[in-house]
Order: sequence, then C-alpha cells, then structure tokens
Amino acid sequence: VPRFDTISFLSDYGLADEFVGVCKAVIRRIAPEAAVIDVCHEIPPHDVRAGSLALARAAQYLPAGVILGVVDPGVGSERRPVAVETADGEAVFVGPDNGLLASAVAMTGGARRAVALTNDEYHLPAPGPTFAGRDIFAPAAAYLCAGVELDELGEAIDPLSLIPGILPLTRDEDGKVIGEVLWVDRFGNVQLNVDPEELTPMGDTVSIRFRDEVRTAVRADTYSELKAGQIGLVVDSYGLVSVALDRRSAADELRLHPPTEVSLEPAPER
Amino acid sequence: VPRFDTISFLSDYGLADEFVGVCKAVIRRIAPEAAVIDVCHEIPPHDVRAGSLALARAAQYLPAGVILGVVDPGVGSERRPVAVETADGEAVFVGPDNGLLASAVAMTGGARRAVALTNDEYHLPAPGPTFAGRDIFAPAAAYLCAGVELDELGEAIDPLSLIPGILPLTRDEDGKVIGEVLWVDRFGNVQLNVDPEELTPMGDTVSIRFRDEVRTAVRADTYSELKAGQIGLVVDSYGLVSVALDRRSAADELRLHPPTEVSLEPAPER
Amino acid sequence: VPRFDTISFLSDYGLADEFVGVCKAVIRRIAPEAAVIDVCHEIPPHDVRAGSLALARAAQYLPAGVILGVVDPGVGSERRPVAVETADGEAVFVGPDNGLLASAVAMTGGARRAVALTNDEYHLPAPGPTFAGRDIFAPAAAYLCAGVELDELGEAIDPLSLIPGILPLTRDEDGKVIGEVLWVDRFGNVQLNVDPEELTPMGDTVSIRFRDEVRTAVRADTYSELKAGQIGLVVDSYGLVSVALDRRSAADELRLHPPTEVSLEPAPER
Repeated sequence: VPRFDTISFLSDYGLADEFVGVCKAVIRRIAPEAAVIDVCHEIPPHDVRAGSLALARAAQYLPAGVILGVVDPGVGSERRPVAVETADGEAVFVGPDNGLLASAVAMTGGARRAVALTNDEYHLPAPGPTFAGRDIFAPAAAYLCAGVELDELGEAIDPLSLIPGILPLTRDEDGKVIGEVLWVDRFGNVQLNVDPEELTPMGDTVSIRFRDEVRTAVRADTYSELKAGQIGLVVDSYGLVSVALDRRSAADELRLHPPTEVSLEPAPER
Repeated sequence: VPRFDTISFLSDYGLADEFVGVCKAVIRRIAPEAAVIDVCHEIPPHDVRAGSLALARAAQYLPAGVILGVVDPGVGSERRPVAVETADGEAVFVGPDNGLLASAVAMTGGARRAVALTNDEYHLPAPGPTFAGRDIFAPAAAYLCAGVELDELGEAIDPLSLIPGILPLTRDEDGKVIGEVLWVDRFGNVQLNVDPEELTPMGDTVSIRFRDEVRTAVRADTYSELKAGQIGLVVDSYGLVSVALDRRSAADELRLHPPTEVSLEPAPER
Repeated sequence: VPRFDTISFLSDYGLADEFVGVCKAVIRRIAPEAAVIDVCHEIPPHDVRAGSLALARAAQYLPAGVILGVVDPGVGSERRPVAVETADGEAVFVGPDNGLLASAVAMTGGARRAVALTNDEYHLPAPGPTFAGRDIFAPAAAYLCAGVELDELGEAIDPLSLIPGILPLTRDEDGKVIGEVLWVDRFGNVQLNVDPEELTPMGDTVSIRFRDEVRTAVRADTYSELKAGQIGLVVDSYGLVSVALDRRSAADELRLHPPTEVSLEPAPER
C-alpha cells in the first residue's frame, strides 16, 4: 500500500497557461491513483512571501500526503529542489528551498528529514532547466504517492540547512502594537500579523495609523455587524486581526496592501 | 454504501486565494472517496443574484449528489446555514439561506426536507465566524457523502420558510415584451429573461430598446450566420433569447449588462 | 475494461462562467470513473491559434486517453465535430475540425482513424446549437471512456480531410533567421518558433530586430544568470528559443506579443 494518496498543490503558475495542467498530467502518468487538490495557483508571479503565507494558512487543513509548492524565481540556479518530511511523517513537502515551504513545515510540526532532489532517475528528461515543476517537483510528488521512498529521491540534507521562513513579528512601542499587512483577500479584508490578544488592553475602539493617516476602528465579531462606512477589526478565519468593511473592500478604500506597516493603539476618549 | 459520491461546488471565493482549495482539503479529509466538480468559483464577490442564476443554469446537468453553493455576504449573521433535499431525493443543496439555492432547487423538483446546520459536531472548530464555507458548509457536504443522514446535521426546518429565489419575469405592454439582462457570458453574449416563444409574434426582425437606444436585430440560429455588425437574437444553450454578434462581444458593443431593462417589439416595416 | 480512463480538457471557456463545470458534470454522469485533467481553459476567446499551440506544447505530457479540445468560433456552423484516433491508438482527440487539434495530433504520431460526431444518440438534447462542448464534445469524450467504440460516434471520415494545423516555420535570409512570437507565458517569457540549433552559427551574442527596434541579447542557460536589464535568449522548457529577462516580463518591456515577426542575426563585433 503506497503511503500517500493525495497531493496538495500550490504555485504561481496561474491558470492562463497550461503549466498546472501539464504538472497534473505528469502526476497522472506516474501515480494514476493520486488525487490532486489545487490549493491555489494564482500566487503573484515569483512572490515567495505571498506563496509562503498562503501555504501556511492552508497547512493545518490539508490532508495527510504530499504538499507540492512551486514559487521558484531562482529556477535552474543554485537553489536546491527539496523534499521535507514533517515530524509525524504525515506529510512531505516538495518544492524549492527558498523559504516557500518553511512556515507551513513549521506549522505542521517541523522537519524530521529532508533530501535534495538530486536523483535524476526520478526527473523527466527536459530540453531546458526552466520548468522544474514539470520536470522535478511534480514527478517527485507523484513518485512519493507511487511508493518510492523519500531517501531514493536524492541525497539526505540537514533539515537545519533549509532556508527559514519569514513570518514577520509585531513589536510593542509604548503600548502601541506595530504590525504589518500580511494579505488582502478577494473581498478586500486586510489581514494583519496581529494576534487578537494583543488588542485586549485596548478596549473596543482602536486607532489605526498607516502611512500618515489615522483612522478609528471598532472591534466586531462579524462583518455584517459593521455599520456603513465603519471600519472594523475582526478576528478572521485564521485567527488573526483583520481590517474590514461590511461588503466593501477595506483594502481598496484605505489603500492597505502588503507589506504596509500599521500601528494600533487605544483610541483617545471623547 | 454512502448515498452520495459527488459534490458540485459553486462559490464567489475566486481562485486568487486558497479558499476553494482549503474547502476541498476539508472535504478530502472527511470524505476521501467523494469527487468534487467545480461548477464555478468566479461569481462576483457577494453577488447572490449572479450565483443563483449560474446555479440554476447548471442545475439540470449536475450529477446526483450534493450541491454546495457559497455566496454569503451575511456570513456570521442571522442568515441560516441550511441543507435542502429535493423532492426525488437525488440531490441535497448545502449553503446559506439567502436565495442563492432557491431557483436551482425549484428547477430540480423543489424542496422535500430541509435542516438548519445547527449541529456543531459536524462543524470545524474555527477561530472566527467568517469562513463558513470551510467550517460549516464544506463539512456538511462531505459528511453527507460519508454517510451522515440529513437530519443529523441539524434541526428540521420548514422548506416553505426558505428565502425564495428571484427569477425576474417579463411583462407584456401593448405587444412589447419588457425583460432584462440576466447574464453576459465570456464571449459577450447577452442572455435575456425572454423565452423564444415570446418572440414568435414578432417575425424575423425585432426592435430592441434599452436606455434611450433603439436597435434592430434579426432572429438567427447560430452566431456564425450573422453578418458583420449585424445584431442577432439567438436561442442560447439554455433555451433563452440572447443578444449576440458573430465573434464579437454584444455586451461591450451595446453596453448591455445585468440587470439592464430591455424592450422587444416587431421592427417597423420598411 | 474500458479503454480509456482520463480526459485531458482544454478550452477557451474561461473560469468566470459555469461552462467548464457543466461539461465536467456531463462527463461525470456518463463516465463516473473517468478522471478529468484541466489542461487550460483560459485560451483567449475564439483564438484557435493559441489553443492549438497550447495543446501542442502539452501533448507529449498527457496521459493515454481522450484529449478534449474546444475552441470553436464556428460553433453551430458547418465545421465538423470530430474524434481523431492517433496512430498508436493511445489517444483520441475530440473537438471541432478547425485546426485546433491538428498540431497536437501530428506531434503524437498522426491520425489513424477519424469520425464525424454525427450519431445523435451520443449527443445531449439541446435547446440551441451554441454549446457544443456540453452537448456534443464532452459526451463523446465521456462515452469513449465508458466503453463506446470510436466508430459508433459517427461516420468515418478520411483523416486527410481534417483541417491542418498552422505551425509557422522560420526562414533564412542572408544568415538572418526570421521567426515570430508564438506565445508569451505568465512570467513574460517570449517563446519564438526558433530552434536553438538555428542560433548555433551566431555565437553568444545575438541582435534581435522587431518592428523598427534592434536589441542585443545573450545566450543563457537559465533566467537567473541574466544581469539586471540584460536580454537573454534561453532554451525554454519546450526546447524552443525564448526571449527573457530575469524576474521581469520581457514581453511587457520589449512589447513582444504573438505573432510579432522577429529577426535574429550575429551581433556586430565591438
């Protein structure tokens, strides 16, 4: 019985070209029984940070199996193609060693073993080195589902040698919480790297500073309890503080985009 | 044997974020055997009307199983999350009770039973109430495929209490048919809420009025029989009258978009 | 045992409408065991050339089975719906006979048998002739996976009567190679119809002429070895010469788009 039957796949390949389809065709030929879940393919081109954050948000929901992540601006250069097994052995992450996978690996228990994908028996012969998703990463993910052992894919490397992720931390300055915009979702909600507990001392009304603007926001449980024009601070579905408007885009109206710095403090009393 | 093995999934989540992928990951963990068909995820954000129409267009073609529809501007508020079984028991619709599902339910025989998804044993634990697709709807759809009975998902509600759909009707005014634009497809064809039989008394050439414009259109069987610049009235693939040009966008050239009102009458004789 | 279990599907239907989802629903009802691989659905509307090139790029990677291609500006007119079996019997291409399939068929060994999809027992009853993907092509693909023989789908036609593809050839003029832009990918890399061997006599530095511009480019193995602002000629992942910049869009910066003519010659010595 093969160990894995699911490949969760995230990339910056977009859907306008046949890149994703070709990777899935390659997987189908090597591991016809494997199911592929498209986590997201519209990560902005070459945006390792955005890809890393999306993968970290999704990680805890993904089924046991292989997680294939490809945002790879250094394709063909010296960055290593790797496969990283998590501590409980429930997942193997496959992708470039450029920080893309690191936060998600950390959130799922950390790395136990890793290999560089150096064994070209498990590569596709390729006319050029520029489509590693098709020629190296998708085959590795598929062979893992077809029963190939991790250590057959290439030479063992020290998990501590993997490029770390960059989850930005907040800092506290005189009772202000200084954070930044992590992500804007389709609905224009603006996720900050701020934990709701950091707002507890501030009460229900908070001043938000960004660029040279100051706005007042209220804590709210759902978008729909916000009045027209009222700026809300809502705990989002990933447990982080987000800046939101009801049924309108807070990102567009406040011009808040990653990685804008944002400062939060108690609103002055009236 | 589980009753259902297919989930047809429509949403306004878009493909730029990982929302759809995470819902499918959740489904895979609960019901690994279930197949998911992506009906459409690019419904404009919060556009219940557009989602409802797309679901109604697709409904008759969907396989027996669960139909998961999520366009949910009131997420977290008092709108009920529901599951609705159709009269023949061949389908269960899962989504918010905001009108999104109603037309499709009606087109597939109407509702026989319904429940509110109140049993939180079948919810995912969630840090916030804003991603019901992941935490409530996708799990409900998956549990139905995993063999959980409808009435285990929550308390029974009266199907007659469900919010009705809004399929706009045409009206007749002195021999004119007054309708509206329902939908513009990728190719710029403009679907009206007009049945071809309503045009029968008008002959082959019809005057179309919208805003303060009047245009002349000809009845045609296919786009390709239209001459350059000629406006056609073609019975579209769903059996409704559409305004079309050959290989160009009628919507762009005539600036026709939902829900513009359109009046049709016999063209004056020359 | 059915002969095929995979349908690779390419179209210009886009993902903003439910067209692709409905085709997959139709397939699921006819051939529930068949897997569908989405090769690409964002071919520009009605762009048979772009669809043909994408299918040709993907063809060698697709699994044995049915290849369903739908870019069909002449839908409902006299163009024939066809199914074309390749020489080794490993694949059947299904789609309109308008040149879309021809290059991919040629690359996978050429056509052995073909039928026109005239047997309406295997069509869906349709209110209009404008959605052949749903009503004719997807059913044909699915019935092939469900065990229906090719010759049951309609009358045999001469493979030589199929509309040929249009893979543009380069020409040589006094030591210059005159080619054209085939494709721009998501990352802005500009694929030419030029084989790397055609550049061999030119050395490492090449002059590129297009419109009334002349630029100097260097041969490179990977994008990342290009310096800032340096224009590269890189053998792309399909084995053709592409014009590229490191981590920026060569297409945008040089305004190179299909089917711009490009001339290559040795750069003058300095």
